[in-house]
Amino acid sequence: MYMNVKYYPSEIQRFCCEVLEGAGVRRSDAEIVARNLTAADRRGIESHGIMRLPSYVARLEAGVMEKETVTRVVRETRAIAVVDAANGLGAVASTFAMKLALRKSEECGVGIVGVKSSNHYGIAGFYAMMALSRDMIGLSFTNAVPAMAPWGGRAAYIGTNPICVAIPAGVERPIVYDGATSVVAKGKIMLAQKKRVPIPPTWAADGWGRPTTDPDVALSDGVLLPFGGYKGSGIALALDVLCGVLPGGAFGFGVAAIAALDRSTEVGHLFAALDIAAFSPVGEFKEKVDRMIREVRATPPAEGIERIYVPGEIEFEKEVESDTNGIAISQAVLDELHGCASKYGVELMKPVSGSRA
Amino acid sequence: MYMNVKYYPSEIQRFCCEVLEGAGVRRSDAEIVARNLTAADRRGIESHGIMRLPSYVARLEAGVMEKETVTRVVRETRAIAVVDAANGLGAVASTFAMKLALRKSEECGVGIVGVKSSNHYGIAGFYAMMALSRDMIGLSFTNAVPAMAPWGGRAAYIGTNPICVAIPAGVERPIVYDGATSVVAKGKIMLAQKKRVPIPPTWAADGWGRPTTDPDVALSDGVLLPFGGYKGSGIALALDVLCGVLPGGAFGFGVAAIAALDRSTEVGHLFAALDIAAFSPVGEFKEKVDRMIREVRATPPAEGIERIYVPGEIEFEKEVESDTNGIAISQAVLDELHGCASKYGVELMKPVSGSRA
Repeated sequence: MYMNVKYYPSEIQRFCCEVLEGAGVRRSDAEIVARNLTAADRRGIESHGIMRLPSYVARLEAGVMEKETVTRVVRETRAIAVVDAANGLGAVASTFAMKLALRKSEECGVGIVGVKSSNHYGIAGFYAMMALSRDMIGLSFTNAVPAMAPWGGRAAYIGTNPICVAIPAGVERPIVYDGATSVVAKGKIMLAQKKRVPIPPTWAADGWGRPTTDPDVALSDGVLLPFGGYKGSGIALALDVLCGVLPGGAFGFGVAAIAALDRSTEVGHLFAALDIAAFSPVGEFKEKVDRMIREVRATPPAEGIERIYVPGEIEFEKEVESDTNGIAISQAVLDELHGCASKYGVELMKPVSGSRA
Repeated sequence: MYMNVKYYPSEIQRFCCEVLEGAGVRRSDAEIVARNLTAADRRGIESHGIMRLPSYVARLEAGVMEKETVTRVVRETRAIAVVDAANGLGAVASTFAMKLALRKSEECGVGIVGVKSSNHYGIAGFYAMMALSRDMIGLSFTNAVPAMAPWGGRAAYIGTNPICVAIPAGVERPIVYDGATSVVAKGKIMLAQKKRVPIPPTWAADGWGRPTTDPDVALSDGVLLPFGGYKGSGIALALDVLCGVLPGGAFGFGVAAIAALDRSTEVGHLFAALDIAAFSPVGEFKEKVDRMIREVRATPPAEGIERIYVPGEIEFEKEVESDTNGIAISQAVLDELHGCASKYGVELMKPVSGSRA
């Protein structure tokens, strides 16, 4: 059993930023990446939080991810653009791209920006949610290293390419749907492996394409299963076109894992912003979304269910909890982080007082 | 057992067109709706084909759907628009809207058009595929009458709101993903009911939100289940915002069933077109999509699987089969169609010769 010590988001932010600076990333870029990782941990999406930092550092040190992110707009109209991230940091290139989409949306009602030759961009919601304060709907998609088979197959070709839609509300909190196109994140299978417990047969298949409950089998020669069977597989494939092929970047086997330290990952993204005011009166839109949220919550629950959640609601509640009580980080992750810290002479994170108890 | 007599698409087109004209729809509009219904049958999507015609006629006769479709652009920028369909025919308003999206995309690289106060629009793919010949990616979404519960609930609030993405290829056929956000279409449960066979427990829930294998229970006080569990539920809800709330239209309980002959359905749609040339060289894009299609097909199949299909491939093969051998229509559907025909003095469809054998 790991002991989970807790840390305030500000400490996670500070630590990530200093480590990245230590690895040669300039301060302003390090801050963006740190904000992205911290946002994931605050929202309870541990798999995309500070535990990713060592993998970023490893790529920077191996020279297969650029320390300096030089974003270049290679194609542009009033409403769309393509950004070449030139193998820079995914969060830096993506923040640049989403900001560009927001500016275009302000002028045209919609802005769409594709990014090629990028890297792991963290949680999709980080970018989509940038639209919310501007009364825009934000969308964020990325492709990723092959992890799922096309439906009916038994070899990985499609990434767990996530979908995120962020929708502003009025007095209620926004609706934020953010999910991979696999049934579960790979991290959950890795956790089961660590705990030596079986996984449900809907999560992964073995090397023959047969459902497996053995996390070892799933992670060795198996594949993750898409959500919704052939539907999830089809949507994930379409996202590989939108994020990979459309911006003129890599797709399918052309996208590499973060762990592959001998080459660039060639990840691609697509961001969109829809300016609500261009479509309908903002006040009316927000009132309707508030009503929708309340009607969803008021749905009579199924047997055994206590409460109906709106997409994103659990994550917003987790943010409050994280800011109040801190974020638990497992000893295994801390050990890796301490390695980074000592290498660059970064001060360790100070735990929330009493959180060890 | 029903006997399935077959008909060529041209006869289905002719018949639908004449019946709609009989019901008071002007010829050019009747042709569009007929093309939409015929396209569904050609592609093997029987649930959205000519079997829908009697329900359209019933709405026209009851005066709850306008015979004349007056589309009005109520909001517009260079890249986006909102169309008020004023309770006209869904396929007519949607064809107008998608064409507008294509024009905008030509100018801006992207065009997005929302439609409010519309009606059932048939298969989503009909509109998305209009983008293909222009070397654009087409997207098509609609909301629909509540049929699924928000995840964890047991009462219908969200429609089976479909997602369609149509992607041009080079020498290969396009990738066309077109699917509802429910595990299966309601029509499949109705078919099981007719055949008196149980349904898989993943398709629907009873009035308590418990999975059911009884089609009667599913269709009386039950709900359809979303594809991919909470993920499909979240995506379907987001689509209700994009198709319903964003264009200033109805959502949730505000959308009515086609069968509700006492009110307008208030269905909303969203269409998008992305001009490939604005993002990357078209030739390169198509070569990559061709490669993707071949790589997907070449995936080693899982145990018991003979062939891996690309999204849309089954439907394209079905089109060829339909054009060659005709489309099977069940006697139950024919009986209803004959009712329409005799009312308006329309000549019955001539079966493919020998198809009764």
